[in-house]
Amino acid sequence: MRTEGLAINLATVRRQWNLRAAVEACARHGIRAVDPWRDQVAATGLEEAARIMRDNGMRVTGLCRGGMFPAADDADRAAAIDDNRRAIDEAAALAADCLVLVVGGLPQDSRDIDGARAMVADGLAAILPHARACKVLLAIEPLHPMYAADRACVNTLAHALDLCDLLGDGVGVAIDVYHVWWDPDLARQIERAGATGRILAHHICDWLVPTRDLLNDRGMMGDGVIDLRAIRRMIETAGYHGPQEVEIFSAADWWTRPGEEVIRTCIERYNSVC
Amino acid sequence: MRTEGLAINLATVRRQWNLRAAVEACARHGIRAVDPWRDQVAATGLEEAARIMRDNGMRVTGLCRGGMFPAADDADRAAAIDDNRRAIDEAAALAADCLVLVVGGLPQDSRDIDGARAMVADGLAAILPHARACKVLLAIEPLHPMYAADRACVNTLAHALDLCDLLGDGVGVAIDVYHVWWDPDLARQIERAGATGRILAHHICDWLVPTRDLLNDRGMMGDGVIDLRAIRRMIETAGYHGPQEVEIFSAADWWTRPGEEVIRTCIERYNSVC
Repeated sequence: MRTEGLAINLATVRRQWNLRAAVEACARHGIRAVDPWRDQVAATGLEEAARIMRDNGMRVTGLCRGGMFPAADDADRAAAIDDNRRAIDEAAALAADCLVLVVGGLPQDSRDIDGARAMVADGLAAILPHARACKVLLAIEPLHPMYAADRACVNTLAHALDLCDLLGDGVGVAIDVYHVWWDPDLARQIERAGATGRILAHHICDWLVPTRDLLNDRGMMGDGVIDLRAIRRMIETAGYHGPQEVEIFSAADWWTRPGEEVIRTCIERYNSVC
Repeated sequence: MRTEGLAINLATVRRQWNLRAAVEACARHGIRAVDPWRDQVAATGLEEAARIMRDNGMRVTGLCRGGMFPAADDADRAAAIDDNRRAIDEAAALAADCLVLVVGGLPQDSRDIDGARAMVADGLAAILPHARACKVLLAIEPLHPMYAADRACVNTLAHALDLCDLLGDGVGVAIDVYHVWWDPDLARQIERAGATGRILAHHICDWLVPTRDLLNDRGMMGDGVIDLRAIRRMIETAGYHGPQEVEIFSAADWWTRPGEEVIRTCIERYNSVC
């Protein structure tokens, strides 16, 4: 079965394997692109992680994740910016296509979502010069509105692209179908993203009915209601032909299965429904 | 404490009381407006429910709910339209300010959200003449995007207002803070809704962090992250001065407490944080 154009976000098998084991399993199955998380890289060691990627001929489609800019005080906001600069360094060391940014939600005890959004814009502006110097692209990932309070207050592709327009070169978007599939403005915003060269990543999974947990109940492609092919066509028509990256957080299902079965199923579904 | 301008959606105390007991409790506490659900009305009997409202001097801010238009075949779509016509009759009998519409999600086994949205527009157009004849206003309630698959594929105020523009007179929107608080376009769309006289209801509760269940974990006003006062100001500035209606689905908390405590707390929080 075809594996070209398929990437595995290593969160998908985070309970089964460490970074080396996950990368080697992907390689065995003919998959040539992965996206690790920072904690997985840290557990392995940055240099060692970069070596594992090179030795296995892996394209690193992204590093997950920077962001989390809003905070209740100046010190915490400055700490977030420092941490993002380190994440940029790590993405550069891994030769990642981009640093994926989950921008953060409301600060503790805050109800000021406009204020949080301003902190995100400020944080992005603060780290962008370092990203440009390191030649690391920043990929803003709009998250589903159900995460507006606690994970990301950028919740539509339109909002993410407005930030890109504000910031200029070196920043784009990660389009994860899970977060955007419901958006009535999706087709138009994907076209806009493509026209300005802003599409940096394309993540896939599925929306289950019912969804039993807000965070860790994502479905395997084909098991839910997202029209994956329709969104892929929009993204390709917009000019993006990079990998489709499988990112599934699934505490009760896919994280409990053998990693080999998960990878095999990703490949099967990539061929049959994506 | 002030109770003027406060309404109770009877779902808030559905586990504690039937319609009569809930209405009488509201009346005891000086509350003069309620919004019953159709199953509560049916359990009491429509005429009896209408009498209970009149006897207690209750304004009926809405009847919950019509909608659920998309279906897999013509027969089921026709059945939904018939059911909505009956809901309109019930709203008229109760002299309700509006019939609240939760428009429905994807039909069984469908991934075609654009198709579902077209079915919603068609369904609304089909019932609108009967609503106009009965002088019942239809209130489209945009639901949070996390309900796009299974409850309502109209997920933004902008989309609901586009439908209103399409349909003409006799239709408007129910603005529930729980569903729209995250929307970066909220202020502009509330202004638009007011300018066209489309605001028919204003529902309140709160978004809890963490939210443990997608459906039945809404918070009491003040216990979450929604800036209720800011949204109320937007709605009032837009020209709507109707009741703020408390609608809380809370399986693990408020539905387990004595109804009297729930009503008292609604009044307290209405005075302190709304």
